[in-house]
Amino acid sequence: MEASNILHMASGDGESSYANNSLVQEIVIRKALPIVKEAIKSFANHDVFFGQCFKIADLGCSSGPNTLLSATNIIDIVHEECKQNNRKAPQFQVSLVDLVGNDFNTVFELLPNFYAKLKEDKGKDFGPCFVSAVPGSFYDRLFPDESLHLVYSSYSVHWLSQVPEGLENNTSNIFFSKTSPPNVFEAYQKQYASDFTKLLQVRSKEVVSGGRMVLTLIGRSFSDPTIDDSVVAWELLTLSLLDLVKEGLVLESDITSFNMPFYNPCEDEIKTIVENEGSFSLDSITAIRDNWDPYDTDYTNTCASKELSHSHGENTKKMVRAVMEPLLASHFGSSIIEKLFNNFAKHVSESLVIKKARHTNIVISVIKK
Amino acid sequence: MEASNILHMASGDGESSYANNSLVQEIVIRKALPIVKEAIKSFANHDVFFGQCFKIADLGCSSGPNTLLSATNIIDIVHEECKQNNRKAPQFQVSLVDLVGNDFNTVFELLPNFYAKLKEDKGKDFGPCFVSAVPGSFYDRLFPDESLHLVYSSYSVHWLSQVPEGLENNTSNIFFSKTSPPNVFEAYQKQYASDFTKLLQVRSKEVVSGGRMVLTLIGRSFSDPTIDDSVVAWELLTLSLLDLVKEGLVLESDITSFNMPFYNPCEDEIKTIVENEGSFSLDSITAIRDNWDPYDTDYTNTCASKELSHSHGENTKKMVRAVMEPLLASHFGSSIIEKLFNNFAKHVSESLVIKKARHTNIVISVIKK
Repeated sequence: MEASNILHMASGDGESSYANNSLVQEIVIRKALPIVKEAIKSFANHDVFFGQCFKIADLGCSSGPNTLLSATNIIDIVHEECKQNNRKAPQFQVSLVDLVGNDFNTVFELLPNFYAKLKEDKGKDFGPCFVSAVPGSFYDRLFPDESLHLVYSSYSVHWLSQVPEGLENNTSNIFFSKTSPPNVFEAYQKQYASDFTKLLQVRSKEVVSGGRMVLTLIGRSFSDPTIDDSVVAWELLTLSLLDLVKEGLVLESDITSFNMPFYNPCEDEIKTIVENEGSFSLDSITAIRDNWDPYDTDYTNTCASKELSHSHGENTKKMVRAVMEPLLASHFGSSIIEKLFNNFAKHVSESLVIKKARHTNIVISVIKK
Repeated sequence: MEASNILHMASGDGESSYANNSLVQEIVIRKALPIVKEAIKSFANHDVFFGQCFKIADLGCSSGPNTLLSATNIIDIVHEECKQNNRKAPQFQVSLVDLVGNDFNTVFELLPNFYAKLKEDKGKDFGPCFVSAVPGSFYDRLFPDESLHLVYSSYSVHWLSQVPEGLENNTSNIFFSKTSPPNVFEAYQKQYASDFTKLLQVRSKEVVSGGRMVLTLIGRSFSDPTIDDSVVAWELLTLSLLDLVKEGLVLESDITSFNMPFYNPCEDEIKTIVENEGSFSLDSITAIRDNWDPYDTDYTNTCASKELSHSHGENTKKMVRAVMEPLLASHFGSSIIEKLFNNFAKHVSESLVIKKARHTNIVISVIKK
């Protein structure tokens, strides 16, 4: 299955849309900001970057309130950096990249306000900034040779180009789990290594020498996937699907034939791939751990009450549904989605009562050699 | 009224959509091809154009079968030119420009086939070609300094940035007509001169020295607008609206308050504006006259039969409706559209029986000084 045909966030602006449930992505963008800042600081006083037009690509921009947030942050940092170095800010070209199925029309509706606010905040002579959309897969070439200065991506490059092959024996699982045969994890690892290598290869042609990529993705805290909290999340989603099998709403064989086009690597895997591919040097790699519920700011290991675990379950559900609904609906049909995620919220609540789970975000900053 | 908010072709792929009624635009693209070819030939063997990445912008790409046709034509010509000069074809960056309200999502769905066909026709090592969308008005800056080699536009730059001011006395007209007071035509002329000057100014910053623009637009054959066929077309549309006033479906005051954000200049006006603005030199200006009905290939001055004039009327209706429906529906309401265009077809047929009318397309090719 080509992931590129059905992989996009829940569209529109309804209650369960990605547009209304992207707080976790916003938090991650905010937390990765110091690393973006560090990367941009390294460009200061280099005419190749800030001399004429500073060219940024945002891989997996999606369609929601965060779509232009990253661009805004980057522009703010460059503007500030130029002010501190007494130089005129450059022009900006922001290329928003996402798959062909992404709702770019909705993104474009945001542009008049985006431009107006830039003018208001930074003055009439600032920039200008030019936003364009580049529809396609970030595993393919997207830009001319040496045409980018900063490639940015938040919460996208954990999506694979396709579901790994050879997962027929991953019975009643939608991802690797503690019950998966060993070849399943290996197939995922191999697909990820192949995809991420491809991403580095194609971008290495497009990024100028000394240019940067700052990529935030969902990762693992442990190299052994069976002890990582991330596996628990997908196991709970599988459990929620199996509940529907009992109700006769889903066929167990449909669960077996569905596997997530997703992989969350550990730091060591990323380091090895960057090193082996060879076009970029690794400047920094940082892990950021967050509660599943993006509204939960309590980092102790247990939930203080059943009420709290219930609300964390509900919030986790909304966040996961916004990301997963189109993918699941295309395989299982949209009629089961509401029930599926109600089950999921229940399982998450029950799990959080016993032990609070976290996801691990990894931010890497690499420099084009 | 800012034209940019409501100016787009009839969306979707229904019977009266622009996608299904854009033959006239296709014919115009085909007829302007020799001029595009001439412009591209002048680039051959200049490394600045064909050395690395050939950068094209299509202003007013719209959303239909023609959207990628112009890009395909240009790529074909460059490819052929490079073959004849024994040089490797460059990479291509095609920027599709249209207003924020254009249905870019539908355009993007065409891209996988577009890329596949390029690979099939030209081989795996061709290009690659990178398509992006740049939403915005072509009267504003859209691209970084000196970042374009060829700007192309077909059937777009006759749209104004706004309805001219001071048309309150253009009673019961939707454009200038034989019954309009003299200030109406002057206001249109002034708005067009201001807009086209702005277009030349902003593009002059973006196009490299020696770069080209080839623009096809609806024009006039006569400098006196009252004797040009184009005025007749809008008068027939006005007549069709006045029919609905009689039926109580449209208020006459709504006709007076509506004026087309459109202007079709004569050759001399274009020459003067290009000369006065000064950034581009005029390489060529060509007028192409076509029958209103794009399917009508008989260039005699009368219709051979009533049946023929009826079918020409129907075809003209479809073509005009595809372009005008969103604009008219936003002012008069969508409920009148069907009746309005049935009236229009009738008036066009009756008019063609007496004398066949033609529209004048003007193709200009200018070179950045």
